[in-house]
Amino acid sequence: MPELRKDIVTREWVVLAKERAKRPSDFRKGAIIHQIQEHDAHCPFCYGNESLTPPELLAYRDRETEPNTRGWRVRVIPNKFAALDRAGELNRNDIGIYDVMNGIGAHEVVIETPNHGKTIPTMEEKEVEEIIWAYCDRYNSLREDPRLKYILVFKNHGEEAGCSLIHSHSQIVATPVIPQKVWSKIKGVEQYKEYRGKCVYCHIADHEIATGERLIAENGGFIACAPFASRSPFETWIIPRNHRSCFARMSRFEVTEFAQILKETMLRLYLCLSDPPYNYTLLTGTCDSDELDNFHWHLEIVPRLTTPAGFELGTSIYINTVPPEDAAEHLRKIEIPKGRTVAA
Amino acid sequence: MPELRKDIVTREWVVLAKERAKRPSDFRKGAIIHQIQEHDAHCPFCYGNESLTPPELLAYRDRETEPNTRGWRVRVIPNKFAALDRAGELNRNDIGIYDVMNGIGAHEVVIETPNHGKTIPTMEEKEVEEIIWAYCDRYNSLREDPRLKYILVFKNHGEEAGCSLIHSHSQIVATPVIPQKVWSKIKGVEQYKEYRGKCVYCHIADHEIATGERLIAENGGFIACAPFASRSPFETWIIPRNHRSCFARMSRFEVTEFAQILKETMLRLYLCLSDPPYNYTLLTGTCDSDELDNFHWHLEIVPRLTTPAGFELGTSIYINTVPPEDAAEHLRKIEIPKGRTVAA
Repeated sequence: MPELRKDIVTREWVVLAKERAKRPSDFRKGAIIHQIQEHDAHCPFCYGNESLTPPELLAYRDRETEPNTRGWRVRVIPNKFAALDRAGELNRNDIGIYDVMNGIGAHEVVIETPNHGKTIPTMEEKEVEEIIWAYCDRYNSLREDPRLKYILVFKNHGEEAGCSLIHSHSQIVATPVIPQKVWSKIKGVEQYKEYRGKCVYCHIADHEIATGERLIAENGGFIACAPFASRSPFETWIIPRNHRSCFARMSRFEVTEFAQILKETMLRLYLCLSDPPYNYTLLTGTCDSDELDNFHWHLEIVPRLTTPAGFELGTSIYINTVPPEDAAEHLRKIEIPKGRTVAA
Repeated sequence: MPELRKDIVTREWVVLAKERAKRPSDFRKGAIIHQIQEHDAHCPFCYGNESLTPPELLAYRDRETEPNTRGWRVRVIPNKFAALDRAGELNRNDIGIYDVMNGIGAHEVVIETPNHGKTIPTMEEKEVEEIIWAYCDRYNSLREDPRLKYILVFKNHGEEAGCSLIHSHSQIVATPVIPQKVWSKIKGVEQYKEYRGKCVYCHIADHEIATGERLIAENGGFIACAPFASRSPFETWIIPRNHRSCFARMSRFEVTEFAQILKETMLRLYLCLSDPPYNYTLLTGTCDSDELDNFHWHLEIVPRLTTPAGFELGTSIYINTVPPEDAAEHLRKIEIPKGRTVAA
């Protein structure tokens, strides 16, 4: 019999169709992971093509190299096709019975590596660490703008995940409103605290460590696990053990630990599912969350292996064919090859 | 400059990226609409292949024909790969800190036509009318089961919309819980009524008729319009002018009118976008909504022309590149060919 499971934060239900349970091989497109060249002369994110993008907002680069030239390791630029615009004043108006606001915000691209062919699972931990620092630095810079209420760091990988440029990159979007989805999680955290006296994500982390059945990886500061109410096959969360609303307040040591578990988790997914398309979202508190302490930041990775259809659109109840306990076991069992960089 | 628009029911924001505005031709896959054969010997939904499906729950068929044989026009069967199961008792339990329920519910398939190659836009209105009657009849039958709290009728068309069988069909899923997404709309209706003293969907229908700029079609009982905060290009709602929580309480005349506008709207989308993939969801009140009068039923059609990515997953804010005013104009301008059946 299928099972309905509830997400204890959002109260959304998920249908777990155990009878239709699938294995990782059902989702793999090809047995061999595609190797991509190191450099593409036409790619605007490639080393040496810096003039093809808008001027950089931030770059970690070798000493004595000029902005917008070679010498960088991570580079952040405004999105050329920005969904929201940095310039202008925030206006909120009525149009008839409706509400409208001009599209003030920010939309940036984090070019994660100069190498066209590398992605997080095939990078060294040091490289992943610098990506996370770029997330933190840009977040902290954007949050000083009082017009911006929420900042989301996310990554799209693969065409099925809405990614149009193959060169590994993340995006940062800042909005002048707090999204409803963020509110619903904040409310979930608040209500859980009211009823149970503790943070729901702290409770989840403790519980997952204790039972172990959905655990994928762990280190001193973080766990990676398949959430109990996984919306899609191989959904994975990385949760810091340390309760904190905002990811950008991590200590240097925590950044190192986060880079380690992020790279390891992405590598397990990469090997298990042959470089699957995925989205990840770095869910954090609202811009004023330091004072409010109303969230517990974490990263959600959703491999895009199935197509949500009318039922999901109409109810927001997802049908998942891989029990998270099975997904976690498959991911845990992956053998990580020796050496830092993986020759897949 | 882009624009942020708010859905006045759900309070979700949408980014309207006007600078990136696209035309219908940007979404068309091919200029010619694919013609599909009338019969496929291997299709379980085809005429004469009735034995390939589970026994029918309902069929509108010619007199003196036997169930599960030829002679039907619309046929409803249990889904062979049901997400939820009709048999058994409803149990709700804890697993550690989590909530779980056994997957009681219903999952049915409405085979809309015996003809393998027809779809709603190419059917006659009479045929569409019978599909709607099947929705009503099955809804009214399922709602007698006290274990079922919500019933969703929906349709997936095309691979990008999660459809695996080409033969035109809809689905009905009944769940033992009220989905969060349904709650959020019910709350939206309740709060609007509290503040403004009227039903938000009644207000939307009046406003759209008055301004006309997002109107796509109308008849005595219904309007079709592009919603002000359209989440995706060419999103279209069909709203009854008559306030009623549950669609399955339509009068015979209303069913005829609904069939007319549904067919016309689907035909406009079909011709404008060359048979686009889409999902539609028939959003209605909860199973006890007759007494509560807390909703205003309507149909939402979402063409699947773009891929939601990390930003949408993390915020539930959609980025739409076609202003609904433009979409409505394109759809209004479509010339409907004479004659009932369209030779595309």
